[in-house]
Amino acid sequence: MAQQKKMVEAITSMNEDFARWYTDIVKKAELCDYSSVRGCMILRPYGYAIWENIQRILDAKFKETGHENVYMPMLIPESLLQKEKDHVEGFAPEVAWVTHGGSEKLADRLCVRPTSETLFCEHYAHIIHSYRDLPKLYNQWCSVMRWEKTTRPFLRTSEFLWQEGHTMHETAEEAKAETLQMLHIYADFCRDALAMPVLQGEKTPKEKFAGAESTYTIEAMMHDGVALQSGTSHFFGDGFARAFDIQYTGRDNKLAYPFQTSWGVSTRLIGGIIMTHGDDNGLVLPPAVAPIQLVIIPIAQHKPGVLDKAEELKQRLSGTVRVKLDDSDNSPGWKFAEYEMKGVPLRLEIGPKDMEQNQCVLVRRDTREKIIVSLDELETAVPAALQAVHDGLYEKALENRRNRTWDAHSWDEFTQIANEKSGFIRAMWCGDEECENRIKDETGIKSRCIPFGEEPIGDTCVCCGRPAKKLVYWGRQY
Amino acid sequence: MAQQKKMVEAITSMNEDFARWYTDIVKKAELCDYSSVRGCMILRPYGYAIWENIQRILDAKFKETGHENVYMPMLIPESLLQKEKDHVEGFAPEVAWVTHGGSEKLADRLCVRPTSETLFCEHYAHIIHSYRDLPKLYNQWCSVMRWEKTTRPFLRTSEFLWQEGHTMHETAEEAKAETLQMLHIYADFCRDALAMPVLQGEKTPKEKFAGAESTYTIEAMMHDGVALQSGTSHFFGDGFARAFDIQYTGRDNKLAYPFQTSWGVSTRLIGGIIMTHGDDNGLVLPPAVAPIQLVIIPIAQHKPGVLDKAEELKQRLSGTVRVKLDDSDNSPGWKFAEYEMKGVPLRLEIGPKDMEQNQCVLVRRDTREKIIVSLDELETAVPAALQAVHDGLYEKALENRRNRTWDAHSWDEFTQIANEKSGFIRAMWCGDEECENRIKDETGIKSRCIPFGEEPIGDTCVCCGRPAKKLVYWGRQY
Repeated sequence: MAQQKKMVEAITSMNEDFARWYTDIVKKAELCDYSSVRGCMILRPYGYAIWENIQRILDAKFKETGHENVYMPMLIPESLLQKEKDHVEGFAPEVAWVTHGGSEKLADRLCVRPTSETLFCEHYAHIIHSYRDLPKLYNQWCSVMRWEKTTRPFLRTSEFLWQEGHTMHETAEEAKAETLQMLHIYADFCRDALAMPVLQGEKTPKEKFAGAESTYTIEAMMHDGVALQSGTSHFFGDGFARAFDIQYTGRDNKLAYPFQTSWGVSTRLIGGIIMTHGDDNGLVLPPAVAPIQLVIIPIAQHKPGVLDKAEELKQRLSGTVRVKLDDSDNSPGWKFAEYEMKGVPLRLEIGPKDMEQNQCVLVRRDTREKIIVSLDELETAVPAALQAVHDGLYEKALENRRNRTWDAHSWDEFTQIANEKSGFIRAMWCGDEECENRIKDETGIKSRCIPFGEEPIGDTCVCCGRPAKKLVYWGRQY
Repeated sequence: MAQQKKMVEAITSMNEDFARWYTDIVKKAELCDYSSVRGCMILRPYGYAIWENIQRILDAKFKETGHENVYMPMLIPESLLQKEKDHVEGFAPEVAWVTHGGSEKLADRLCVRPTSETLFCEHYAHIIHSYRDLPKLYNQWCSVMRWEKTTRPFLRTSEFLWQEGHTMHETAEEAKAETLQMLHIYADFCRDALAMPVLQGEKTPKEKFAGAESTYTIEAMMHDGVALQSGTSHFFGDGFARAFDIQYTGRDNKLAYPFQTSWGVSTRLIGGIIMTHGDDNGLVLPPAVAPIQLVIIPIAQHKPGVLDKAEELKQRLSGTVRVKLDDSDNSPGWKFAEYEMKGVPLRLEIGPKDMEQNQCVLVRRDTREKIIVSLDELETAVPAALQAVHDGLYEKALENRRNRTWDAHSWDEFTQIANEKSGFIRAMWCGDEECENRIKDETGIKSRCIPFGEEPIGDTCVCCGRPAKKLVYWGRQY
């Protein structure tokens, strides 16, 4: 127990200093390490394994919905980046520039891709000629780079891993439907795999992606009430197609420009998992993406038969869940703390007394609830307990969001909540960017989104008092 | 048939111009496209799907043997690259340099990783402290960049996708065993998944990797007799560990340097597949990595029941093989040519007459052999035919290598073969780099490897006539 205590003490309490608690977990759970490259992080095996699980689940969803993976170059010529005006304005200030190849100075410098719309467009111009070539539903898993001034592991780093979907369609309607389909896939994934409730909605014009006609977002609320933009999906209209001269012969035999979307999520989701579910004992992982779903810890493992039984249980369960047996010499107490720190959703304890009664003890990471289970029922009890952990995590996160969401009907109310609380504020907005700017300047709070399917809570703008039709979620962000 | 003919005519014959045949296939089979970024290519869905299959199979092998995936930054500070002398000399001339981040000029410029030994070493210095931390068995899937002057799709491009394993061990023996284990995994993979026979052996000191103590290689022979270095595995000794000050406390409580390996294969393997198995009708894919293993082509599909039956067969087989049904309006002849071009290993034809007799026709891509199969036996006949394609491809490639391998016992014999033939030359070598250089200068031929387990074919150097103990394979290379 001394060791366990020591280990737990090594993490800052989340209520004391949430930012330090976060970096403590990232380090102690061995998710990542810092490198000597400014703003770039190293994804360690345990952190990368979470990303592999995210990739596997999402990639299957993308393929089910007809998307194909491709790989585009990691460098973009400056002349290509400049083809779409809004896009280059948005990204040029934050890219890394390659100016030399070997000892040769380049005539056209190249940027390390911050996102790949321009490359996809150049390729689409080569391969889209007829309506028969549409739709094109491409996705790419890669790393991108944005030169960030201040960085935090997973949340904001100069380089990060992500997927970027880029699709082309015959009609605006079809492209809009794709944009929303992918947003919903992200939202379902967050709910079903990450146990992370998200708001779905549209970004205000000010918060749109550079070059997009409209941007949709999923917004999660972290444990401390701060928002995390967790994924976005963009409808481009035919703006890029016109800039890149992508034309095809339509069903009516006339030349036309196709309509475009893009959408992406990144390793930032891992930051979201940490800050949604973690506690003062460390990481808490949603079962669907946990590298280890169940850890078996033998009790009094020197006693005859204990290790054999633990090994037997591991073998029995290995087809059902991702299971690890820790039969190292460390004490059970140390192991409990270690796997709590690593956020393993479920622990199975088996010792001589349990064996006598043909049972074992399951302990949930989230609630620490102990469940006595007959060894005959393990194959059903373990998945059921994992499901219970998932449901518990989701409910708790939803409850946190409910408790931290407030309606503001007046400017006084808005500023009071902004000063005293941390969470989402629901308030009406006239649609004017000036009001959005004033809210940002006076409270530090940005618009999150115009949510889908929520009723207005008034008819005047919370900022200027003029008529307002749009309900907006507002909140501070990571 | 007109369409089929037209399509086939569009590929240059391999005997007429092998290089053009190669680029024709890459383009017509839609494996990749060129981008405006010098030397970088776009992996299109069909080409990327082959890479995904390669990744899936190899990644499982790596994990079975205890390796874990990580992700390192894509940029390396110049000061870090310079820490190991041989390594920087080998790579500095061929890297792309990032000199600006946004509008800011960097003090220490960064190169886009050409390989990641230096980054792994920096990280290992952070995390290896005790013998209990060893071995470290890490792998990374990523893209790397080497500034190439002349490029060819898959074979030599400025950016390419690969995996790089980097491991650290307590003893030199353990690291050497790892180096060879990974080489054998590559060789087995080439044989079992790519149907590509490879020589395994050691590189001469001149051909070693920059900074390695010894480099092992798998060498394949392409259809035209030219060699393709298809994968390498390096033993580093403790050279990098010393340069990066990676020390751990050993079992004897003394500080020690660990021993290191690295190993990699890349998308170059796809080039190897094309040039090992392809023919004048296009690509021929080994079944294990073919995105589509079986294409179903309905004959007289407007006749009642044909499309239903074809769909039924697709459903039946979809759990067994990667199957596609092409029920488009194109003619069967056009479809035959299209999927031959794309190298689909097996085609299933089903028409009204077949249905009457409860049978279908399987056609092998490699031999065009037709196999009449009862519909009742499809679930066993299809995998058996795929296995036969695999075996046939392997045998044919092995036969090509046998027919193009010659022994040279004298300098005259060597130069004559070098002038008249294309393939591997087996010849004795004294071990002197001067002889290796002379052979290169006078014949354009490089050493491939000192093969494992082959008997000497003489006792004097084929070049200088002095005593020689080493049998070497020599050959031109891609």
